[in-house]
Amino acid sequence: MICDLEFGIWNLEFGIWNFLKITHPTYKMSTKTRKVKIFCPATVANVNCGFDALGFALEGIGDEMIFRKVAQPGVSITKITGPDDLPIATQENVAGVAALAILEGENASFGIEIEIHKKIRSGSGIGSSAASAAGAVFGVNQFLKTPVSNLELTRYAMKGEVVASGNEHADNVAPCIYGGTTLVTSYDPFHIVALPSMGGLHVGIIHPHIKISTKESREKLPESVSLKDALVQSQKLAGFVASLYECDKELFAHSLQDILVEPHRKDLLPYFDSVKQLSQDSGCVAFGISGSGPSMFTFAFAKASIETFLQKAETLYQSNDLKIDTYCTQISNTGCRLLKDEIKN
Amino acid sequence: MICDLEFGIWNLEFGIWNFLKITHPTYKMSTKTRKVKIFCPATVANVNCGFDALGFALEGIGDEMIFRKVAQPGVSITKITGPDDLPIATQENVAGVAALAILEGENASFGIEIEIHKKIRSGSGIGSSAASAAGAVFGVNQFLKTPVSNLELTRYAMKGEVVASGNEHADNVAPCIYGGTTLVTSYDPFHIVALPSMGGLHVGIIHPHIKISTKESREKLPESVSLKDALVQSQKLAGFVASLYECDKELFAHSLQDILVEPHRKDLLPYFDSVKQLSQDSGCVAFGISGSGPSMFTFAFAKASIETFLQKAETLYQSNDLKIDTYCTQISNTGCRLLKDEIKN
Repeated sequence: MICDLEFGIWNLEFGIWNFLKITHPTYKMSTKTRKVKIFCPATVANVNCGFDALGFALEGIGDEMIFRKVAQPGVSITKITGPDDLPIATQENVAGVAALAILEGENASFGIEIEIHKKIRSGSGIGSSAASAAGAVFGVNQFLKTPVSNLELTRYAMKGEVVASGNEHADNVAPCIYGGTTLVTSYDPFHIVALPSMGGLHVGIIHPHIKISTKESREKLPESVSLKDALVQSQKLAGFVASLYECDKELFAHSLQDILVEPHRKDLLPYFDSVKQLSQDSGCVAFGISGSGPSMFTFAFAKASIETFLQKAETLYQSNDLKIDTYCTQISNTGCRLLKDEIKN
Repeated sequence: MICDLEFGIWNLEFGIWNFLKITHPTYKMSTKTRKVKIFCPATVANVNCGFDALGFALEGIGDEMIFRKVAQPGVSITKITGPDDLPIATQENVAGVAALAILEGENASFGIEIEIHKKIRSGSGIGSSAASAAGAVFGVNQFLKTPVSNLELTRYAMKGEVVASGNEHADNVAPCIYGGTTLVTSYDPFHIVALPSMGGLHVGIIHPHIKISTKESREKLPESVSLKDALVQSQKLAGFVASLYECDKELFAHSLQDILVEPHRKDLLPYFDSVKQLSQDSGCVAFGISGSGPSMFTFAFAKASIETFLQKAETLYQSNDLKIDTYCTQISNTGCRLLKDEIKN
């Protein structure tokens, strides 16, 4: 009952905020707001030619988080729901560490309670930890007197990624915050470009239920590569970037290749070559490992191609007794965003 | 006297052609035209982060060539003027081989006589052979019943580059044909992007009069590079491309670095580090080896920075008894182009 009342007040506040946003475009949410609910999307990083650089946000796949502002400084995780058993201790939790980083970095005088409703499976390769880290800083940002930029949010979120993977990297958190497709051009100085979107693009995701250890996946990376291959891949990344600005579908398709990392990592993914072939046979224009796997992504300019591919992939894996999740979606032009509806579970 | 009359007729024809171009935009130069004179610009290839991929055309530095259509199929070089002793035999001459390639490739029923008036010194590192190869195919293209695209011209011009360097490469011939800044995204399929221009950009070129053997320069290239460096450089190239589309001067400046090749080749260039430092001290935003040297280039958003730098560089080299040529120029948005005035020398 208390919970219902609380949600009622919150929804009222959200309604007023939305109304004011339209009638007074310069209006910002009151820093007195006590509670916000957000959606933070799943993301695909690496994206073939853009290892460590490219990432994009997925439409309709993601977590939900609720933030409550409290007087006591610090962060506490009050609830976690979802498919995995995640640590609730702030310092061990990706969202906890990221939220603390922004609160401390911005000298906030208040504290935050976080509810995490995970939908993205941990270790799936579509940015589960990034969604928590990005969501955490995006959520906290709503309560700051002077909200920080997307670039600063990404920098804070990277602190959370350290908990999950041991190092600060932005290729998942950046698209989760900015939305669309992002390019990390440099870490020093830290710079991210929000790339234009390619019209009419559809995305297919397959997630075979296998575990890939981060250690094993890292060990597969070659220490060095031939200069020739490095230059070819570099041209492909530059071509990919140009293809988005030029709306050049052909260039987009032939740029999305990975000759540096995929050959070394694909053996960790059962039936990789077969399923890649299926994507081509279905009319898809690119196929690759999402992050460090086990999820894989494909692009197509016709939704039917994605649907055909997902069906074929499902049949292939099922006939080999492997369970997979499949998603037919698009690149989301929005990253983390405020929600007004109630949590469903 | 015959020559004057010939030039008079040619100028009249050129005048009519120019008039018709304006009044009838779809009008194409008559394939009966017997003679054209063209300008083919010097170019800078590699451009730090874009080894083997990027190149740009220089304003006001370049060669002139005159083409005469003759009945007898084949190509003959009738005259070469300029600072170097270049072979006049068609099969040994870059322009000759490139002109033959397009004539044969397009099944032309006529032949071409070429006069080459070189201004770009051979072995200077600002695309001397590329200007000849690109100029040759551009010139021949004026006489074809169905002129070919810039991409096809580049493909033919690459045949000429083989004579000079032993391999087909497009990083100089592409900007010489397209103008502006070009990006070779792939050789298979062969694809070139004409990148947008960065407003307000000035270019400085220094050409110390030293010889670098192609063999020695090639041997300096590492066989392999670390994956980490390959990825960093790749991000810089992608960032450079994005900076042009975004008109982002800051991103432009910090993307123009070369961690893969410059460290290995700079020892071939006397005082490289000192002169690079001078460019920074003068307010220039990038500095690097042009092609495989010995020329070097710098960029600045103020012409005064280039002028200051060139003066300082000249003093440095002179005090070390090294002669240099310097150029204060801009990126030329036009590649090879038709001329109507008479040859000056």
